[in-house]
Amino acid sequence: MSEAPVDPAQASGAVPPADGESPAQSKKGAKKAEAKAKKEAEKARKAAEREAAAAAQKAASGGNEDLAKDNYGDIHHTIKVAAEKVQLKHLGEEHVGKTVKVRAWIQNARMQGAKMAFVELREERNWTIQGVVSASAEGEPVSKQMVKWVGALRLESFVLVEATVQKPLEPVKSCRVSDYELHPTKVYLIAPGPEVLPLGLNASNRAIASFDDEDPQAPAAAPAEGVENLSITDSAAAPSASLSTHLNNPAMHKRAPVQQAIADVRMTVRKLFSEYLESKDFVQFEPPCLIGAASEGGANVFSLPYFDKQAFLAQSPQFYKQFEIAGGRKRVYCIGPVFRAENSNTPRHMTEFTGLDLEMEIEDHYHEVLHMIEGVMLYIFRGLQERCKDQIDLIRAIYPSDEFLLPEPGKEVRLTFAEGQKLLREEGPEEFRNVSDDEDMSTPQEKALGALVRKKFGTDFYVLDKFPESARPFYTIEDPENPKVTNAYDFFMRGQEILSGGQRIHLPDLLEARLRKKGIDPKSQGIKDYVDVFRSAGVPPHGGGGIGLDRVVAWYLNLPSVHLASYYPRTPKRLTP
Amino acid sequence: MSEAPVDPAQASGAVPPADGESPAQSKKGAKKAEAKAKKEAEKARKAAEREAAAAAQKAASGGNEDLAKDNYGDIHHTIKVAAEKVQLKHLGEEHVGKTVKVRAWIQNARMQGAKMAFVELREERNWTIQGVVSASAEGEPVSKQMVKWVGALRLESFVLVEATVQKPLEPVKSCRVSDYELHPTKVYLIAPGPEVLPLGLNASNRAIASFDDEDPQAPAAAPAEGVENLSITDSAAAPSASLSTHLNNPAMHKRAPVQQAIADVRMTVRKLFSEYLESKDFVQFEPPCLIGAASEGGANVFSLPYFDKQAFLAQSPQFYKQFEIAGGRKRVYCIGPVFRAENSNTPRHMTEFTGLDLEMEIEDHYHEVLHMIEGVMLYIFRGLQERCKDQIDLIRAIYPSDEFLLPEPGKEVRLTFAEGQKLLREEGPEEFRNVSDDEDMSTPQEKALGALVRKKFGTDFYVLDKFPESARPFYTIEDPENPKVTNAYDFFMRGQEILSGGQRIHLPDLLEARLRKKGIDPKSQGIKDYVDVFRSAGVPPHGGGGIGLDRVVAWYLNLPSVHLASYYPRTPKRLTP
Repeated sequence: MSEAPVDPAQASGAVPPADGESPAQSKKGAKKAEAKAKKEAEKARKAAEREAAAAAQKAASGGNEDLAKDNYGDIHHTIKVAAEKVQLKHLGEEHVGKTVKVRAWIQNARMQGAKMAFVELREERNWTIQGVVSASAEGEPVSKQMVKWVGALRLESFVLVEATVQKPLEPVKSCRVSDYELHPTKVYLIAPGPEVLPLGLNASNRAIASFDDEDPQAPAAAPAEGVENLSITDSAAAPSASLSTHLNNPAMHKRAPVQQAIADVRMTVRKLFSEYLESKDFVQFEPPCLIGAASEGGANVFSLPYFDKQAFLAQSPQFYKQFEIAGGRKRVYCIGPVFRAENSNTPRHMTEFTGLDLEMEIEDHYHEVLHMIEGVMLYIFRGLQERCKDQIDLIRAIYPSDEFLLPEPGKEVRLTFAEGQKLLREEGPEEFRNVSDDEDMSTPQEKALGALVRKKFGTDFYVLDKFPESARPFYTIEDPENPKVTNAYDFFMRGQEILSGGQRIHLPDLLEARLRKKGIDPKSQGIKDYVDVFRSAGVPPHGGGGIGLDRVVAWYLNLPSVHLASYYPRTPKRLTP
Repeated sequence: MSEAPVDPAQASGAVPPADGESPAQSKKGAKKAEAKAKKEAEKARKAAEREAAAAAQKAASGGNEDLAKDNYGDIHHTIKVAAEKVQLKHLGEEHVGKTVKVRAWIQNARMQGAKMAFVELREERNWTIQGVVSASAEGEPVSKQMVKWVGALRLESFVLVEATVQKPLEPVKSCRVSDYELHPTKVYLIAPGPEVLPLGLNASNRAIASFDDEDPQAPAAAPAEGVENLSITDSAAAPSASLSTHLNNPAMHKRAPVQQAIADVRMTVRKLFSEYLESKDFVQFEPPCLIGAASEGGANVFSLPYFDKQAFLAQSPQFYKQFEIAGGRKRVYCIGPVFRAENSNTPRHMTEFTGLDLEMEIEDHYHEVLHMIEGVMLYIFRGLQERCKDQIDLIRAIYPSDEFLLPEPGKEVRLTFAEGQKLLREEGPEEFRNVSDDEDMSTPQEKALGALVRKKFGTDFYVLDKFPESARPFYTIEDPENPKVTNAYDFFMRGQEILSGGQRIHLPDLLEARLRKKGIDPKSQGIKDYVDVFRSAGVPPHGGGGIGLDRVVAWYLNLPSVHLASYYPRTPKRLTP
């Protein structure tokens, strides 16, 4: 409403004479007053005419002049909302009755008759609140047009809202913020959602329907790209979507609370890894991705033209961790991408993944390293239980999993490879009655052993030590008392390998001898430079291990695929987004 | 010395009769005693004979039987030293007179006559101590042979030592631990140093002599690989070595205290970056290195065969940071490798380097981002002054630099590009009197402006805002009030750019329009997928920046080359080690 019009009746009334004036003066004054009254009456008449004209115009247009027209619509850089910005998760009693500013996504919007719309507003981490937009009798601050516009806002539009905070009659069960609701007085569209949502949040937050990205033999596998997959509609009973639909729609895939929870767990693992190692005097370093020779085995390595040379993508920071030890560091770790050109389309494989690597000097025995790695893993598992409880519960509601069992302190399970094989032979399934101590285990053997260890020792995490010589790379040291086995170990979670490690050969002559034994020429490209580092200065005994971050996250949460644990999974079939 | 021999004189003496015995008993007893004495005399005679024979044998062999032979030599896995392990930096009065265990490198070893050797033992971070090995008269625990062996130990051998801690007559000035010295009783060789040290520690710890790796036109540039460079001998007056000699000898390059100090500074920058951003609610994420399209400009991108496709190495995490914002995160950062296939051999360029990247939602104005980046940089600079003072002093002794000047709080320098150009025109060198507001700056212009800002405002760190439209990529938003410039900025250290950033276009139609203006087809590979993300859901306004970690370290310390700031620098000419 603009200013109240002047009341013509009042305006036309005579002005009473001022007290204490003489009659003559009064006469003179009366004349003056008369002239003044005339003027004012004329003024009032004109105002009344204007008013009548406006009312007539309003009536002519159906009463639809939009008095709220500045309170909604597309935002412009000159529009500012002065009210205090509040995060929904911080809303409290002190805000009731106050005007606040909120920036949020439209999670839902619907009309309730012609004069009211309900919107569900969502902030980061799924904080949602109900908004009630109702047209006021005066047509502002909220008009019927504004209500209609708000009720038609597309899902996943991003808006700026000014609203008063109120307490709803009863808690709003459908929203995370249930004790308060917003009554918007201004709503501006910052970024519109799409006409048709390719992947709705409800669908995005359900378990993956099919892993069409992973199995090229899957019968009706939808193509990795294209609209054929985009059959998801947003409704309470939204069907789940395929992995490729998820990955092809990164914005909506990532907006799902379950994916944000998985990302939280992942980053917490990284953090716990660093924290523990730094408390043990490890220092971080950065190995290169581009290397000059496919020195860790030519298979499964990406190569690329590099000016007038050929370059390769590192499969692990192995050599570089050792160079740091050679360079006088006692304990180092690194976190970064590693690459495998393996044409495997399984839930366990990716071509680029994140390695958590460590290497340390050995003083008396390589079990110093084994115990260190056991320590960091247990620190990670216990830390996740403490710091990510909510996230784990949320993920479990969508991807159910048994609790990840940990050994009691002092009862960590460390078997030798031979002991593990014996257990498999004696207590494992029929088909593993003849497994050998001299050959590496297959994935089914690993899983069977994991089940046995869980049953027998009540833990999903254990170590297998003293792997056979044939199963380990050339840089692994042999057991000085039994050269058929090595000072090397694997770590397992739920029967799946997450870490390989061991003691490395630190003496160049011994290294050359083992290279020859493995059929590798010690003078070959990349290898010679590596051996020469140990010739260039005395290097202390050392050992370490490399942990696959993606696998730790996926197996800990029992996710159906490592691809769900990764930010941007890379497989032979997928390089996008 | 073995057991003391029985004294024959004493042994042949008669045993006095026991008190209280009768004469008859005494007689009987005397006989018994006589027999006993005879027996003992015989025993003593035989012992004396054996002793004489041993002495004769010793005399015959020149007195050289090595009684200390088990106290030195190559280590074997069965050898253990039981004494308490002490780190040299923790040696204190409580250790004096005690036996300790030390593991260290031979920093120096020399004979002092035939019976004494001095060794300098070094632990991580250049903690050194003097060891005095002197042969004992008895030939053990230290024999002359042992002294000779220790005195001949090669430099950079790694040894295990058992020693007693003593206070030297006067402080040992040549060692970092000057108040104590070690008197070894056991010395075992764990890993030998080389016959000839290709790069000694003294040389390694001096300033780089020449940057032969960097300038292909350098007249007598030594080849990047090969023994031609390895002309360094270890002596107190060691000459400095070329960059390629350093990089070709990673063990010795990295053992230099100056390189370890630079590595410390580098890792501290990383840590400070994370710390500050996490305190401001940023979350870390991991962008991929392998991408499906050279979407950020086809030049300078590495490409590689990827199964039946072509892959590229990411030049920045730009798109992925934006996808995280699109995915509902308010503030994200990442730290990881980025790649540029640029054939530039300068001290400023590498083909692989570490990016510190951040991206955040903008609420009201893109200067929220500018101030955030300014905040994190100032936190880094102030944090370095606090946490790395010793390292910076150490580095400055080798690579001198002026103090890095910071603005006083509240007096941060933020110029617009146009203001910077005006300053150059009005107060800069002659050749910059005609610089334009519409064209990007050259490196010499940047340096000249840096000098002007230092002189005028007393800071080596400042921001240049509102870059011209032509100087910024397609994803940068134009200033809504002046489309000739953009909402984008660069940050400078000592007149050199270390960060580019700005506000991004978050509306797909606007993005397509600017792509077309820049001559890029919005439907082209990689670009279409990128634009589609903004079509798939409403994305809030956002902005960010990318910082080159290598440059921050190099320019802060005023190093002659970023290659010294990197762990394993990669250039067009170097892919090793």
